[in-house]
Amino acid sequence: MNLADYLRRRRRLVDGALKRWIPAEDEFPPQVHKAMHYSLFAGGKRLRPILTLAAAEAAGGRTRDALPLACSLELIHTYSLIHDDLPSMDDDDLRRGKPTSHKVFGEAVAILAGDALLTEAFYLASRPDLMKGVPPRRRIQALWHLARAAGSLGMVGGQTVDILTQGRPADARTLEYIHTRKTGALIAASVAVGAVIGGAGLRSFRNLLAYGEKLGLAFQITDDLLDAEGDEKKLGKAVRKDPSKGKATYPALYGIPESRRKARRLVEEALARLKSFDRRANPLREIARFVLERTN
Amino acid sequence: MNLADYLRRRRRLVDGALKRWIPAEDEFPPQVHKAMHYSLFAGGKRLRPILTLAAAEAAGGRTRDALPLACSLELIHTYSLIHDDLPSMDDDDLRRGKPTSHKVFGEAVAILAGDALLTEAFYLASRPDLMKGVPPRRRIQALWHLARAAGSLGMVGGQTVDILTQGRPADARTLEYIHTRKTGALIAASVAVGAVIGGAGLRSFRNLLAYGEKLGLAFQITDDLLDAEGDEKKLGKAVRKDPSKGKATYPALYGIPESRRKARRLVEEALARLKSFDRRANPLREIARFVLERTN
Repeated sequence: MNLADYLRRRRRLVDGALKRWIPAEDEFPPQVHKAMHYSLFAGGKRLRPILTLAAAEAAGGRTRDALPLACSLELIHTYSLIHDDLPSMDDDDLRRGKPTSHKVFGEAVAILAGDALLTEAFYLASRPDLMKGVPPRRRIQALWHLARAAGSLGMVGGQTVDILTQGRPADARTLEYIHTRKTGALIAASVAVGAVIGGAGLRSFRNLLAYGEKLGLAFQITDDLLDAEGDEKKLGKAVRKDPSKGKATYPALYGIPESRRKARRLVEEALARLKSFDRRANPLREIARFVLERTN
Repeated sequence: MNLADYLRRRRRLVDGALKRWIPAEDEFPPQVHKAMHYSLFAGGKRLRPILTLAAAEAAGGRTRDALPLACSLELIHTYSLIHDDLPSMDDDDLRRGKPTSHKVFGEAVAILAGDALLTEAFYLASRPDLMKGVPPRRRIQALWHLARAAGSLGMVGGQTVDILTQGRPADARTLEYIHTRKTGALIAASVAVGAVIGGAGLRSFRNLLAYGEKLGLAFQITDDLLDAEGDEKKLGKAVRKDPSKGKATYPALYGIPESRRKARRLVEEALARLKSFDRRANPLREIARFVLERTN
Protein backbone atom coordinates (compact mmCIF):
# COMPACT_ATOMS: atom_id res chain seq x y z
CA MET A 1 0.00 0.00 0.00
CA ASN A 2 0.97 3.63 -0.59
CA LEU A 3 0.79 5.26 2.84
CA ALA A 4 0.94 8.87 1.64
CA ASP A 5 -2.00 8.18 -0.64
CA TYR A 6 -3.90 6.35 2.11
CA LEU A 7 -3.35 9.20 4.56
CA ARG A 8 -4.44 11.78 2.00
CA ARG A 9 -7.70 9.93 1.27
CA ARG A 10 -8.45 9.38 4.93
CA ARG A 11 -7.69 12.98 5.80
CA ARG A 12 -10.11 14.08 3.10
CA LEU A 13 -12.77 11.75 4.50
CA VAL A 14 -12.31 13.14 8.03
CA ASP A 15 -12.23 16.76 6.88
CA GLY A 16 -15.42 16.27 4.87
CA ALA A 17 -17.20 14.69 7.81
CA LEU A 18 -16.10 17.43 10.21
CA LYS A 19 -17.33 20.11 7.81
CA ARG A 20 -20.64 18.31 7.39
CA TRP A 21 -21.24 17.58 11.05
CA ILE A 22 -20.07 20.53 13.11
CA PRO A 23 -21.99 23.83 13.13
CA ALA A 24 -21.05 26.15 10.23
CA GLU A 25 -18.67 29.04 10.79
CA ASP A 26 -21.41 31.65 10.49
CA GLU A 27 -23.84 29.84 12.79
CA PHE A 28 -24.86 32.08 15.70
CA PRO A 29 -22.85 33.03 17.74
CA PRO A 30 -20.30 33.32 14.91
CA GLN A 31 -17.37 34.24 17.19
CA VAL A 32 -17.20 30.84 18.84
CA HIS A 33 -17.92 28.94 15.64
CA LYS A 34 -15.25 30.84 13.71
CA ALA A 35 -12.77 30.03 16.48
CA MET A 36 -13.76 26.35 16.40
CA HIS A 37 -13.25 26.20 12.62
CA TYR A 38 -10.02 28.19 12.76
CA SER A 39 -8.30 25.61 14.95
CA LEU A 40 -10.05 22.57 13.53
CA PHE A 41 -9.02 23.36 9.95
CA ALA A 42 -5.51 24.64 10.66
CA GLY A 43 -3.81 21.81 8.77
CA GLY A 44 -3.71 19.03 11.35
CA LYS A 45 -2.41 15.63 10.27
CA ARG A 46 -5.62 13.92 11.51
CA LEU A 47 -3.49 11.15 13.01
CA ARG A 48 -6.02 10.29 15.73
CA PRO A 49 -9.13 9.97 13.55
CA ILE A 50 -7.14 8.05 10.93
CA LEU A 51 -6.03 5.63 13.67
CA THR A 52 -9.67 5.16 14.68
CA LEU A 53 -10.68 4.36 11.10
CA ALA A 54 -7.66 2.06 10.60
CA ALA A 55 -8.35 0.21 13.87
CA ALA A 56 -12.01 -0.30 12.93
CA GLU A 57 -10.81 -1.72 9.60
CA ALA A 58 -8.26 -3.99 11.30
CA ALA A 59 -11.02 -5.29 13.58
CA GLY A 60 -13.12 -6.18 10.57
CA GLY A 61 -15.55 -3.27 10.81
CA ARG A 62 -16.66 -0.59 8.38
CA THR A 63 -14.84 2.73 8.11
CA ARG A 64 -18.14 4.54 7.75
CA ASP A 65 -19.38 3.34 11.13
CA ALA A 66 -16.28 4.66 12.87
CA LEU A 67 -16.30 8.08 11.20
CA PRO A 68 -18.31 10.01 13.86
CA LEU A 69 -16.08 8.82 16.70
CA ALA A 70 -13.00 9.41 14.55
CA CYS A 71 -14.15 13.04 14.30
CA SER A 72 -14.72 13.12 18.06
CA LEU A 73 -11.07 12.28 18.58
CA GLU A 74 -9.95 15.15 16.38
CA LEU A 75 -12.33 17.52 18.18
CA ILE A 76 -10.87 16.55 21.56
CA HIS A 77 -7.32 16.82 20.27
CA THR A 78 -8.04 20.30 18.87
CA TYR A 79 -9.67 21.53 22.09
CA SER A 80 -6.63 20.35 24.05
CA LEU A 81 -4.27 22.32 21.77
CA ILE A 82 -6.31 25.52 22.18
CA HIS A 83 -6.36 25.25 25.98
CA ASP A 84 -2.68 24.18 26.17
CA ASP A 85 -1.64 27.29 24.24
CA LEU A 86 -3.44 29.72 26.60
CA PRO A 87 -1.39 32.40 28.41
CA SER A 88 -1.94 30.72 31.78
CA MET A 89 -0.76 27.37 30.35
CA ASP A 90 2.06 27.11 27.78
CA ASP A 91 1.54 30.70 26.59
CA ASP A 92 2.24 29.94 22.93
CA ASP A 93 1.79 32.46 20.14
CA LEU A 94 2.14 30.04 17.22
CA ARG A 95 0.59 26.69 16.40
CA ARG A 96 1.11 24.97 13.04
CA GLY A 97 2.66 28.20 11.76
CA LYS A 98 -0.42 30.30 12.55
CA PRO A 99 -1.26 32.59 15.49
CA THR A 100 -2.86 30.61 18.31
CA SER A 101 -6.59 30.88 19.01
CA HIS A 102 -6.34 33.33 21.92
CA LYS A 103 -4.07 35.57 19.83
CA VAL A 104 -6.75 35.80 17.14
CA PHE A 105 -10.01 35.64 19.11
CA GLY A 106 -8.98 36.68 22.63
CA GLU A 107 -8.68 34.49 25.68
CA ALA A 108 -12.39 34.24 26.55
CA VAL A 109 -13.47 33.03 23.11
CA ALA A 110 -10.48 30.66 22.90
CA ILE A 111 -11.49 29.02 26.19
CA LEU A 112 -15.11 28.81 25.04
CA ALA A 113 -14.14 27.39 21.64
CA GLY A 114 -12.17 24.68 23.43
CA ASP A 115 -15.10 23.93 25.72
CA ALA A 116 -17.41 23.78 22.70
CA LEU A 117 -15.10 21.42 20.75
CA LEU A 118 -14.87 19.06 23.71
CA THR A 119 -18.65 19.05 24.08
CA GLU A 120 -19.14 18.65 20.34
CA ALA A 121 -17.03 15.48 20.48
CA PHE A 122 -19.62 13.82 22.71
CA TYR A 123 -22.50 15.33 20.77
CA LEU A 124 -21.26 13.80 17.51
CA ALA A 125 -20.61 10.46 19.16
CA SER A 126 -24.19 10.30 20.46
CA ARG A 127 -26.13 11.66 17.46
CA PRO A 128 -29.09 9.34 16.91
CA ASP A 129 -29.01 9.86 13.12
CA LEU A 130 -25.43 8.59 12.75
CA MET A 131 -23.87 5.13 13.19
CA LYS A 132 -27.17 3.37 12.73
CA GLY A 133 -25.37 0.10 11.96
CA VAL A 134 -23.52 0.07 15.29
CA PRO A 135 -25.14 -1.61 18.32
CA PRO A 136 -25.84 1.08 20.97
CA ARG A 137 -23.92 -0.93 23.58
CA ARG A 138 -20.76 -0.60 21.49
CA ARG A 139 -21.25 3.11 21.08
CA ILE A 140 -21.47 3.56 24.85
CA GLN A 141 -18.34 1.48 25.34
CA ALA A 142 -16.51 3.62 22.78
CA LEU A 143 -17.73 6.82 24.47
CA TRP A 144 -16.45 5.50 27.77
CA HIS A 145 -12.95 4.87 26.36
CA LEU A 146 -12.96 8.33 24.87
CA ALA A 147 -14.02 10.09 28.07
CA ARG A 148 -11.65 8.10 30.24
CA ALA A 149 -8.66 8.94 28.05
CA ALA A 150 -9.52 12.65 27.91
CA GLY A 151 -10.24 13.19 31.63
CA SER A 152 -8.35 13.93 34.82
CA LEU A 153 -6.82 10.44 34.95
CA GLY A 154 -5.79 10.76 31.30
CA MET A 155 -5.01 13.75 29.09
CA VAL A 156 -6.07 16.49 31.52
CA GLY A 157 -4.05 14.79 34.27
CA GLY A 158 -0.99 14.74 31.99
CA GLN A 159 -1.39 18.40 31.12
CA THR A 160 -1.80 19.29 34.82
CA VAL A 161 1.48 17.60 35.76
CA ASP A 162 3.21 19.06 32.70
CA ILE A 163 2.18 22.61 33.68
CA LEU A 164 2.97 22.21 37.37
CA THR A 165 6.44 20.72 36.87
CA GLN A 166 7.68 23.34 34.42
CA GLY A 167 10.97 24.90 35.38
CA ARG A 168 11.86 22.00 37.66
CA PRO A 169 14.19 19.17 36.64
CA ALA A 170 12.05 16.24 35.51
CA ASP A 171 12.63 12.75 36.82
CA ALA A 172 11.97 9.64 34.73
CA ARG A 173 8.73 8.74 36.51
CA THR A 174 7.20 12.18 36.04
CA LEU A 175 8.23 12.25 32.39
CA GLU A 176 6.68 8.82 31.81
CA TYR A 177 3.49 9.98 33.53
CA ILE A 178 3.19 13.14 31.44
CA HIS A 179 3.90 11.40 28.16
CA THR A 180 1.61 8.43 28.64
CA ARG A 181 -1.24 10.70 29.77
CA LYS A 182 -0.90 13.94 27.86
CA THR A 183 -0.42 12.49 24.37
CA GLY A 184 -0.40 8.73 24.82
CA ALA A 185 -3.85 8.34 26.35
CA LEU A 186 -5.71 9.95 23.47
CA ILE A 187 -3.70 8.11 20.81
CA ALA A 188 -4.33 4.80 22.57
CA ALA A 189 -8.02 5.73 22.85
CA SER A 190 -8.15 6.49 19.12
CA VAL A 191 -7.21 2.89 18.45
CA ALA A 192 -9.41 1.48 21.25
CA VAL A 193 -12.48 3.37 20.05
CA GLY A 194 -11.98 2.14 16.48
CA ALA A 195 -11.50 -1.41 17.73
CA VAL A 196 -14.74 -1.27 19.74
CA ILE A 197 -16.79 0.21 16.90
CA GLY A 198 -15.23 -2.27 14.48
CA GLY A 199 -16.45 -5.10 16.69
CA ALA A 200 -13.11 -6.49 17.88
CA GLY A 201 -13.28 -9.55 20.14
CA LEU A 202 -11.57 -9.43 23.51
CA ARG A 203 -8.20 -10.75 22.33
CA SER A 204 -8.07 -8.52 19.26
CA PHE A 205 -9.14 -5.58 21.38
CA ARG A 206 -6.31 -6.12 23.87
CA ASN A 207 -3.75 -6.36 21.08
CA LEU A 208 -5.03 -3.24 19.38
CA LEU A 209 -5.10 -1.34 22.67
CA ALA A 210 -1.49 -2.35 23.41
CA TYR A 211 -0.53 -1.29 19.87
CA GLY A 212 -2.12 2.10 20.57
CA GLU A 213 -0.36 2.54 23.89
CA LYS A 214 3.07 1.75 22.45
CA LEU A 215 2.41 3.95 19.47
CA GLY A 216 1.24 6.84 21.63
CA LEU A 217 4.41 6.86 23.68
CA ALA A 218 6.59 6.44 20.57
CA PHE A 219 4.78 9.40 19.01
CA GLN A 220 5.52 11.62 21.98
CA ILE A 221 9.19 10.63 22.02
CA THR A 222 9.59 11.39 18.32
CA ASP A 223 7.80 14.68 19.00
CA ASP A 224 10.42 15.48 21.63
CA LEU A 225 13.16 14.43 19.20
CA LEU A 226 11.77 16.66 16.47
CA ASP A 227 11.69 19.50 18.95
CA ALA A 228 15.29 18.88 19.95
CA GLU A 229 16.66 18.46 16.41
CA GLY A 230 13.97 19.87 14.21
CA ASP A 231 13.81 22.58 11.69
CA GLU A 232 11.56 25.47 12.70
CA LYS A 233 10.17 26.02 9.23
CA LYS A 234 9.22 22.41 8.68
CA LEU A 235 7.36 22.19 11.96
CA GLY A 236 5.62 25.55 11.78
CA LYS A 237 6.22 26.22 15.44
CA ALA A 238 9.05 27.47 17.59
CA VAL A 239 11.54 24.66 18.22
CA ARG A 240 13.88 24.09 21.12
CA LYS A 241 11.37 25.94 23.25
CA ASP A 242 10.89 23.01 25.55
CA PRO A 243 14.28 23.16 27.33
CA SER A 244 14.00 26.95 27.66
CA LYS A 245 10.73 26.45 29.52
CA GLY A 246 12.21 23.67 31.61
CA LYS A 247 9.80 21.16 30.06
CA ALA A 248 10.38 17.49 30.64
CA THR A 249 11.47 15.72 27.44
CA TYR A 250 13.01 12.36 26.58
CA PRO A 251 16.11 13.79 24.87
CA ALA A 252 16.74 16.05 27.88
CA LEU A 253 16.60 13.09 30.24
CA TYR A 254 18.07 10.23 28.17
CA GLY A 255 19.91 11.98 25.35
CA ILE A 256 19.05 11.82 21.63
CA PRO A 257 20.49 8.37 20.71
CA GLU A 258 18.81 6.57 23.62
CA SER A 259 15.51 8.36 22.92
CA ARG A 260 15.70 7.19 19.29
CA ARG A 261 16.32 3.63 20.43
CA LYS A 262 13.40 3.79 22.82
CA ALA A 263 11.04 5.04 20.09
CA ARG A 264 12.21 2.28 17.75
CA ARG A 265 11.72 -0.38 20.42
CA LEU A 266 8.19 0.84 21.13
CA VAL A 267 7.23 0.77 17.46
CA GLU A 268 8.59 -2.77 17.16
CA GLU A 269 6.52 -3.81 20.17
CA ALA A 270 3.47 -2.12 18.64
CA LEU A 271 3.98 -4.02 15.39
CA ALA A 272 4.39 -7.32 17.23
CA ARG A 273 0.87 -6.86 18.64
CA LEU A 274 -0.52 -6.90 15.09
CA LYS A 275 0.97 -10.29 14.17
CA SER A 276 -2.31 -12.20 14.38
CA PHE A 277 -4.13 -9.66 12.17
CA ASP A 278 -4.58 -10.02 8.41
CA ARG A 279 -3.81 -7.44 5.75
CA ARG A 280 -6.63 -5.22 6.93
CA ALA A 281 -4.19 -4.16 9.67
CA ASN A 282 -1.67 -2.95 7.06
CA PRO A 283 -2.62 0.72 7.51
CA LEU A 284 -1.92 0.42 11.26
CA ARG A 285 1.43 -1.22 10.45
CA GLU A 286 2.40 1.50 7.99
CA ILE A 287 1.32 4.25 10.38
CA ALA A 288 3.56 2.82 13.12
CA ARG A 289 6.57 2.92 10.78
CA PHE A 290 5.61 6.40 9.67
CA VAL A 291 5.53 7.68 13.27
CA LEU A 292 9.13 6.56 13.68
CA GLU A 293 10.32 8.25 10.50
CA ARG A 294 8.22 11.40 10.47
CA THR A 295 9.84 14.79 10.08
CA ASN A 296 6.91 16.91 11.23
CA MET B 1 -45.21 16.48 50.19
CA ASN B 2 -42.64 18.44 52.16
CA LEU B 3 -40.40 20.04 49.54
CA ALA B 4 -37.60 21.05 51.91
CA ASP B 5 -37.37 17.49 53.12
CA TYR B 6 -37.54 16.10 49.58
CA LEU B 7 -34.76 18.43 48.40
CA ARG B 8 -32.58 17.53 51.39
CA ARG B 9 -32.90 13.81 50.74
CA ARG B 10 -32.26 14.18 47.02
CA ARG B 11 -29.27 16.45 47.62
CA ARG B 12 -27.82 13.81 49.94
CA LEU B 13 -28.37 11.14 47.29
CA VAL B 14 -26.60 13.21 44.63
CA ASP B 15 -23.72 14.21 46.92
CA GLY B 16 -23.17 10.59 47.91
CA ALA B 17 -23.12 9.45 44.29
CA LEU B 18 -20.73 12.21 43.25
CA LYS B 19 -18.34 11.31 46.08
CA ARG B 20 -18.53 7.64 45.14
CA TRP B 21 -18.13 8.08 41.42
CA ILE B 22 -15.64 10.84 40.76
CA PRO B 23 -11.90 10.38 41.46
CA ALA B 24 -10.92 11.06 45.08
CA GLU B 25 -9.37 14.36 46.07
CA ASP B 26 -5.93 12.83 46.62
CA GLU B 27 -5.93 10.84 43.38
CA PHE B 28 -2.91 11.74 41.25
CA PRO B 29 -2.53 14.51 40.14
CA PRO B 30 -4.03 15.89 43.39
CA GLN B 31 -4.03 19.53 42.23
CA VAL B 32 -6.70 19.01 39.61
CA HIS B 33 -8.75 16.61 41.75
CA LYS B 34 -8.68 18.97 44.72
CA ALA B 35 -9.89 21.77 42.45
CA MET B 36 -12.67 19.54 41.08
CA HIS B 37 -13.84 18.67 44.61
CA TYR B 38 -13.51 22.24 45.82
CA SER B 39 -16.06 23.54 43.31
CA LEU B 40 -18.23 20.45 43.22
CA PHE B 41 -18.76 20.43 46.99
CA ALA B 42 -19.06 24.16 47.54
CA GLY B 43 -22.67 24.00 48.67
CA GLY B 44 -24.58 23.95 45.40
CA LYS B 45 -28.35 23.49 45.52
CA ARG B 46 -28.15 20.49 43.13
CA LEU B 47 -31.18 21.85 41.29
CA ARG B 48 -30.21 20.26 37.97
CA PRO B 49 -29.59 16.70 39.18
CA ILE B 50 -32.70 16.87 41.37
CA LEU B 51 -34.71 17.88 38.30
CA THR B 52 -33.28 14.89 36.42
CA LEU B 53 -34.32 12.52 39.21
CA ALA B 54 -37.75 14.14 39.53
CA ALA B 55 -38.35 13.98 35.77
CA ALA B 56 -37.39 10.29 35.68
CA GLU B 57 -39.87 9.70 38.50
CA ALA B 58 -42.60 11.67 36.74
CA ALA B 59 -42.02 9.58 33.60
CA GLY B 60 -42.51 6.41 35.62
CA GLY B 61 -38.85 5.43 35.85
CA ARG B 62 -36.56 4.62 38.75
CA THR B 63 -34.54 7.31 40.51
CA ARG B 64 -31.57 4.95 40.74
CA ASP B 65 -31.34 4.58 36.97
CA ALA B 66 -31.18 8.35 36.48
CA LEU B 67 -28.55 9.00 39.15
CA PRO B 68 -25.41 8.83 36.92
CA LEU B 69 -26.83 11.30 34.41
CA ALA B 70 -28.13 13.48 37.24
CA CYS B 71 -24.53 13.69 38.44
CA SER B 72 -23.39 14.49 34.89
CA LEU B 73 -25.64 17.55 34.92
CA GLU B 74 -24.11 18.81 38.15
CA LEU B 75 -20.60 18.20 36.78
CA ILE B 76 -21.36 20.25 33.67
CA HIS B 77 -23.00 23.00 35.71
CA THR B 78 -19.94 23.17 38.00
CA TYR B 79 -17.46 23.29 35.12
CA SER B 80 -19.42 26.15 33.57
CA LEU B 81 -19.24 28.15 36.81
CA ILE B 82 -15.45 27.68 37.09
CA HIS B 83 -14.86 28.81 33.51
CA ASP B 84 -17.38 31.69 33.76
CA ASP B 85 -15.56 33.07 36.80
CA LEU B 86 -12.13 33.17 35.07
CA PRO B 87 -10.33 36.52 34.76
CA SER B 88 -10.81 36.58 30.99
CA MET B 89 -14.55 35.91 31.42
CA ASP B 90 -16.60 37.40 34.29
CA ASP B 91 -13.50 37.86 36.48
CA ASP B 92 -15.26 36.95 39.72
CA ASP B 93 -13.45 36.52 43.04
CA LEU B 94 -16.34 34.99 44.97
CA ARG B 95 -18.75 32.15 44.27
CA ARG B 96 -21.21 30.83 46.86
CA GLY B 97 -19.37 32.90 49.48
CA LYS B 98 -15.99 31.28 48.78
CA PRO B 99 -13.00 32.36 46.68
CA THR B 100 -13.39 31.21 43.07
CA SER B 101 -11.35 28.29 41.73
CA HIS B 102 -8.71 30.36 39.94
CA LYS B 103 -8.21 32.45 43.10
CA VAL B 104 -7.39 29.30 45.07
CA PHE B 105 -5.67 27.07 42.51
CA GLY B 106 -4.47 29.53 39.86
CA GLU B 107 -5.84 30.03 36.38
CA ALA B 108 -4.23 27.00 34.71
CA VAL B 109 -5.54 24.47 37.22
CA ALA B 110 -8.97 26.15 37.25
CA ILE B 111 -9.25 25.78 33.47
CA LEU B 112 -8.07 22.16 33.68
CA ALA B 113 -10.46 21.35 36.54
CA GLY B 114 -13.32 22.71 34.40
CA ASP B 115 -12.17 20.65 31.42
CA ALA B 116 -11.94 17.56 33.64
CA LEU B 117 -15.42 18.06 35.14
CA LEU B 118 -16.94 18.42 31.68
CA THR B 119 -15.19 15.25 30.52
CA GLU B 120 -16.13 13.42 33.72
CA ALA B 121 -19.79 14.15 32.99
CA PHE B 122 -19.61 12.06 29.83
CA TYR B 123 -17.45 9.44 31.50
CA LEU B 124 -20.04 8.87 34.23
CA ALA B 125 -22.87 8.81 31.72
CA SER B 126 -21.13 6.06 29.71
CA ARG B 127 -19.74 3.85 32.49
CA PRO B 128 -20.58 0.25 31.58
CA ASP B 129 -20.97 -0.76 35.25
CA LEU B 130 -23.75 1.76 35.93
CA MET B 131 -27.34 2.03 34.70
CA LYS B 132 -27.52 -1.62 33.79
CA GLY B 133 -31.32 -1.50 33.80
CA VAL B 134 -31.46 1.21 31.14
CA PRO B 135 -31.55 0.22 27.45
CA PRO B 136 -28.33 1.48 25.78
CA ARG B 137 -30.36 3.29 23.13
CA ARG B 138 -31.93 5.47 25.84
CA ARG B 139 -28.56 6.23 27.35
CA ILE B 140 -27.27 7.46 24.01
CA GLN B 141 -30.36 9.60 23.54
CA ALA B 142 -29.85 11.11 27.00
CA LEU B 143 -26.17 11.77 26.25
CA TRP B 144 -27.18 13.53 23.08
CA HIS B 145 -29.59 15.86 24.90
CA LEU B 146 -26.88 16.60 27.44
CA ALA B 147 -24.18 17.39 24.86
CA ARG B 148 -26.52 19.46 22.72
CA ALA B 149 -27.58 21.62 25.66
CA ALA B 150 -23.99 22.17 26.82
CA GLY B 151 -22.41 22.98 23.44
CA SER B 152 -21.92 25.97 21.17
CA LEU B 153 -25.60 26.10 20.22
CA GLY B 154 -26.56 25.87 23.90
CA MET B 155 -24.79 26.88 27.08
CA VAL B 156 -21.40 27.76 25.55
CA GLY B 157 -23.20 29.83 22.90
CA GLY B 158 -25.09 31.70 25.62
CA GLN B 159 -21.92 32.40 27.57
CA THR B 160 -20.17 33.60 24.39
CA VAL B 161 -22.90 36.15 23.66
CA ASP B 162 -23.06 37.16 27.34
CA ILE B 163 -19.29 37.88 27.40
CA LEU B 164 -19.22 39.65 24.05
CA THR B 165 -22.16 41.96 24.74
CA GLN B 166 -20.98 43.17 28.15
CA GLY B 167 -20.90 46.93 28.52
CA ARG B 168 -23.31 47.42 25.64
CA PRO B 169 -27.04 48.09 26.10
CA ALA B 170 -28.87 44.79 25.72
CA ASP B 171 -31.88 44.47 23.45
CA ALA B 172 -34.72 42.07 24.18
CA ARG B 173 -33.67 39.54 21.54
CA THR B 174 -30.11 39.27 22.82
CA LEU B 175 -31.29 38.96 26.41
CA GLU B 176 -33.69 36.18 25.45
CA TYR B 177 -30.90 34.39 23.58
CA ILE B 178 -28.47 34.58 26.50
CA HIS B 179 -31.00 33.48 29.08
CA THR B 180 -32.47 30.57 27.13
CA ARG B 181 -28.99 29.29 26.25
CA LYS B 182 -26.72 30.13 29.17
CA THR B 183 -28.94 28.83 31.98
CA GLY B 184 -32.12 27.65 30.31
CA ALA B 185 -30.59 25.03 28.03
CA LEU B 186 -29.00 23.00 30.83
CA ILE B 187 -32.06 23.20 33.08
CA ALA B 188 -34.28 22.05 30.21
CA ALA B 189 -31.77 19.28 29.48
CA SER B 190 -31.85 18.18 33.13
CA VAL B 191 -35.54 17.47 32.71
CA ALA B 192 -35.19 16.01 29.21
CA VAL B 193 -32.44 13.60 30.28
CA GLY B 194 -34.50 12.40 33.25
CA ALA B 195 -37.54 11.96 31.01
CA VAL B 196 -35.55 9.87 28.52
CA ILE B 197 -33.96 7.66 31.18
CA GLY B 198 -37.34 7.30 32.90
CA GLY B 199 -38.77 5.96 29.65
CA ALA B 200 -41.21 8.78 28.81
CA GLY B 201 -43.31 8.29 25.70
CA LEU B 202 -43.25 10.96 23.01
CA ARG B 203 -46.16 13.01 24.38
CA SER B 204 -44.92 12.90 27.96
CA PHE B 205 -41.44 13.74 26.78
CA ARG B 206 -42.63 16.83 24.93
CA ASN B 207 -44.58 18.04 27.96
CA LEU B 208 -41.65 17.48 30.29
CA LEU B 209 -39.25 19.22 27.90
CA ALA B 210 -41.59 22.23 27.66
CA TYR B 211 -41.86 22.24 31.47
CA GLY B 212 -38.03 22.33 31.62
CA GLU B 213 -37.73 25.14 29.09
CA LYS B 214 -40.27 27.35 30.89
CA LEU B 215 -38.70 26.57 34.24
CA GLY B 216 -35.18 27.32 32.96
CA LEU B 217 -36.17 30.76 31.78
CA ALA B 218 -38.16 31.46 34.96
CA PHE B 219 -35.10 30.44 37.00
CA GLN B 220 -32.88 32.89 35.15
CA ILE B 221 -35.37 35.73 35.58
CA THR B 222 -35.68 35.09 39.32
CA ASP B 223 -31.87 34.96 39.42
CA ASP B 224 -31.78 38.42 37.84
CA LEU B 225 -34.44 39.60 40.30
CA LEU B 226 -32.46 38.28 43.27
CA ASP B 227 -29.43 40.06 41.93
CA ALA B 228 -31.38 43.32 41.58
CA GLU B 229 -33.10 43.17 44.95
CA GLY B 230 -31.17 40.56 46.85
CA ASP B 231 -29.33 40.52 50.05
CA GLU B 232 -25.60 40.00 49.63
CA LYS B 233 -25.23 37.80 52.69
CA LYS B 234 -28.03 35.46 51.75
CA LEU B 235 -26.67 34.88 48.28
CA GLY B 236 -23.01 34.54 49.23
CA LYS B 237 -21.93 36.58 46.24
CA ALA B 238 -21.67 40.21 45.31
CA VAL B 239 -25.08 41.56 44.28
CA ARG B 240 -25.99 44.37 41.92
CA LYS B 241 -22.79 43.58 40.07
CA ASP B 242 -24.64 42.87 36.86
CA PRO B 243 -25.62 46.47 35.96
CA SER B 244 -22.14 47.70 36.87
CA LYS B 245 -20.69 45.29 34.30
CA GLY B 246 -23.31 46.29 31.77
CA LYS B 247 -24.79 42.78 31.87
CA ALA B 248 -28.12 42.15 30.24
CA THR B 249 -30.82 41.39 32.82
CA TYR B 250 -34.60 41.21 32.81
CA PRO B 251 -35.12 43.85 35.52
CA ALA B 252 -32.80 46.25 33.67
CA LEU B 253 -34.78 45.83 30.46
CA TYR B 254 -38.36 45.36 31.71
CA GLY B 255 -38.28 46.65 35.30
CA ILE B 256 -38.84 44.59 38.45
CA PRO B 257 -42.67 44.30 38.46
CA GLU B 258 -42.86 43.18 34.81
CA SER B 259 -39.99 40.69 35.35
CA ARG B 260 -41.85 39.22 38.33
CA ARG B 261 -44.98 38.88 36.23
CA LYS B 262 -43.01 37.18 33.47
CA ALA B 263 -41.48 34.67 35.88
CA ARG B 264 -44.89 33.89 37.35
CA ARG B 265 -46.41 33.40 33.90
CA LEU B 266 -43.62 31.02 32.91
CA VAL B 267 -44.05 28.94 36.04
CA GLU B 268 -47.80 28.73 35.41
CA GLU B 269 -47.13 27.56 31.86
CA ALA B 270 -44.63 25.01 33.18
CA LEU B 271 -47.21 23.67 35.64
CA ALA B 272 -49.85 23.47 32.90
CA ARG B 273 -47.58 21.05 31.03
CA LEU B 274 -47.78 18.64 33.96
CA LYS B 275 -51.58 18.40 33.96
CA SER B 276 -51.73 14.93 32.44
CA PHE B 277 -49.19 13.53 34.93
CA ASP B 278 -50.12 11.73 38.14
CA ARG B 279 -48.80 12.44 41.63
CA ARG B 280 -45.34 11.18 40.67
CA ALA B 281 -44.92 14.60 39.05
CA ASN B 282 -45.56 16.36 42.39
CA PRO B 283 -41.84 17.00 43.01
CA LEU B 284 -41.61 18.76 39.63
CA ARG B 285 -44.68 20.81 40.54
CA GLU B 286 -43.28 21.81 43.92
CA ILE B 287 -39.89 22.68 42.42
CA ALA B 288 -41.54 25.01 39.92
CA ARG B 289 -43.32 26.88 42.75
CA PHE B 290 -40.09 26.93 44.72
CA VAL B 291 -38.19 28.54 41.83
CA LEU B 292 -40.68 31.39 41.86
CA GLU B 293 -40.43 31.99 45.58
CA ARG B 294 -36.77 31.28 46.23
CA THR B 295 -34.63 33.77 48.08
CA ASN B 296 -31.23 32.39 47.12
